[in-house]
Amino acid sequence: MFLRRHLRVTLLSTRHISSLANSPHRAVVYSSTGNPSQVLSARALPPLPPPSPTHLNLRVLLSPINPADINVIEGVYPSKPSIRPDLGNVFIAGNEGLAEVVDVGDSVNSVVPGDWVVMSKPQAGTWASQLSVGEGDVIKVPQGLSEVQAATMSVNPPTALCMLRDFASLSPGDYIVQNGANSAVGQAVIQISAALSLKTINLVRDRPDISELKSKLSSLGATHVLTYDELAEKSTKTRVKEWTSGRSIKLGLNCVGGRDTTLMTGLLGHDAHLVSYGAMSKSPLSLPTSYFIFKNLTSHGFWMSRWYDSHSKSDREQLLAELADMMIAGKLHAPEHEIVTLRGSDEQVSEQVREAIGKGSAGRHGKKVLLRFAEE
Amino acid sequence: MFLRRHLRVTLLSTRHISSLANSPHRAVVYSSTGNPSQVLSARALPPLPPPSPTHLNLRVLLSPINPADINVIEGVYPSKPSIRPDLGNVFIAGNEGLAEVVDVGDSVNSVVPGDWVVMSKPQAGTWASQLSVGEGDVIKVPQGLSEVQAATMSVNPPTALCMLRDFASLSPGDYIVQNGANSAVGQAVIQISAALSLKTINLVRDRPDISELKSKLSSLGATHVLTYDELAEKSTKTRVKEWTSGRSIKLGLNCVGGRDTTLMTGLLGHDAHLVSYGAMSKSPLSLPTSYFIFKNLTSHGFWMSRWYDSHSKSDREQLLAELADMMIAGKLHAPEHEIVTLRGSDEQVSEQVREAIGKGSAGRHGKKVLLRFAEE
Repeated sequence: MFLRRHLRVTLLSTRHISSLANSPHRAVVYSSTGNPSQVLSARALPPLPPPSPTHLNLRVLLSPINPADINVIEGVYPSKPSIRPDLGNVFIAGNEGLAEVVDVGDSVNSVVPGDWVVMSKPQAGTWASQLSVGEGDVIKVPQGLSEVQAATMSVNPPTALCMLRDFASLSPGDYIVQNGANSAVGQAVIQISAALSLKTINLVRDRPDISELKSKLSSLGATHVLTYDELAEKSTKTRVKEWTSGRSIKLGLNCVGGRDTTLMTGLLGHDAHLVSYGAMSKSPLSLPTSYFIFKNLTSHGFWMSRWYDSHSKSDREQLLAELADMMIAGKLHAPEHEIVTLRGSDEQVSEQVREAIGKGSAGRHGKKVLLRFAEE
Repeated sequence: MFLRRHLRVTLLSTRHISSLANSPHRAVVYSSTGNPSQVLSARALPPLPPPSPTHLNLRVLLSPINPADINVIEGVYPSKPSIRPDLGNVFIAGNEGLAEVVDVGDSVNSVVPGDWVVMSKPQAGTWASQLSVGEGDVIKVPQGLSEVQAATMSVNPPTALCMLRDFASLSPGDYIVQNGANSAVGQAVIQISAALSLKTINLVRDRPDISELKSKLSSLGATHVLTYDELAEKSTKTRVKEWTSGRSIKLGLNCVGGRDTTLMTGLLGHDAHLVSYGAMSKSPLSLPTSYFIFKNLTSHGFWMSRWYDSHSKSDREQLLAELADMMIAGKLHAPEHEIVTLRGSDEQVSEQVREAIGKGSAGRHGKKVLLRFAEE
């Protein structure tokens, strides 16, 4: 990685413009939504034409598989990729990704060839070796990050940071509570909270290796970790009061829903905010109305795609710069991950993608799987 | 009423200070929370002493029975009256009420004897013939209102106005949707919306006289009235889209909870606000997490007591002045009501109060019952 990064700097400093012309262009596409193992296939595509004045041609370096990507392919997600009539009416899969700028249109001035960028436009079609995007659809990646850090920095870590910052007014020493604490966002919440001197109560499902998981989350900076069974114990409210010295908890983060979330919300104090960003239990969010009326609870949702859509380019860059600073300072680590290199015939790559998705789904709470198209 | 009001003006203009010394002082009290028919009793109390420098002595003119009053007496409401050690450790019942200022402390300058006031302090103990309160605990009633209008103006109408104004940014012609539309607040929402040129979709329970109820709410200014059964029909979403010409509904008001509220919330557009102020179904508020994440729904609670507590005296006066203007303009009517006059022995008055509460509970969607202590 350091070698590659060094190379990038060298390329940049000599204004060498690398070319995509000799690289194969391949993408993971689908023509109708459905079960990914049935609808996805890898396909060789014609080379990208030179970019229009406002566009960039990118070489994709790494493409994470996120759980929402599967929902998009299944057709059960509200945001969809644009259909590509130029490629025979297919969709290109993939939302998140790290890419290197290879060629820029005449009026582009915010990036130069050699820069690393991530996508702020949702569903840009990152499961491809090359991409053409508008200048406004990317965010330049700050210097000093590894490929994996950069490739996984535009969805989960900023979700965590925005949720910690945009809803409740918190001061160092304040507690927050979250469920699904071992999810990718949950782990980012733990680390960013610690970096901001916030304390966290983290809820996870019980499992055979629970003490191992608790140790892992503690080592990331979790103040307390409880299972949902422990949350349901009568003594928990008292324990939490002792932990917080009676100070009220003003922020709860939810990616689960259902009864466990009702219990978690009961830990919040007056004037608190519950922010939901997922619904892993597939149960609705069910809360006593009295929490809203008498405790002045406010319940919000957070969706990173909407945040990008409603914020300026400089806001986006500022957000990633803050996260990069935490990464460089060693306070925010890349997720545990596995890189799957795609190579061979279209059929072989299709099969490799299906396998990778299987790993990604099974590993919802485990390793992040990232795709890399081999340069052959 | 007009005679009495005329008299008030006369008294005021001559700076005549009426006295409570010769009036009996009686209150509805309880020493422990529980079933109102078992714990409440009327009791003769000693005359009020002259007010301290910051206090007022009031003659109570009318005291509404609101559903929440019963919950307070039952001990299931979060706000409680102060215990009265001076009266043998009892609570005086009653939250809302209209009173006439009779005597003021030396440093009081915002009201003079003869002024009408309503309570901004919750649980002031209005089910009494006389009251001693702090200058900051009352709001002066604007001129020109009837006793019933004034007595019922400090809880339900401002709840309606604040919910319409404090959460979503609405423009004339915009639609809102509410359930429990025949409640006291619901009827105020209909009238105030009409006064503000907002359109309303109103949900009510089906009943034998449904067409009569629909006519009644329409005559108050309701744009559309649907039963919950009609709400559940598949065609309703399409009908609502026709009504709103596809414009998104940004505000939902909820006093019901449960499944019907989930359906109602489905009518809201992106970036909408759901404001809950009651839970008549006693079922929790259960909403798909996707509404929060992808439609950016925000769910709030509203409680008038908190509003008063968190706003200045001039904000409170301004709020009532706006409502008074609507009342005087004939746009906001006093609720249908029945005045119960309390007279006789303590035992007789106790019985009259119990009967009145029975009427009040039965008439949750019917007539508002108000207590008046007879001057004997």
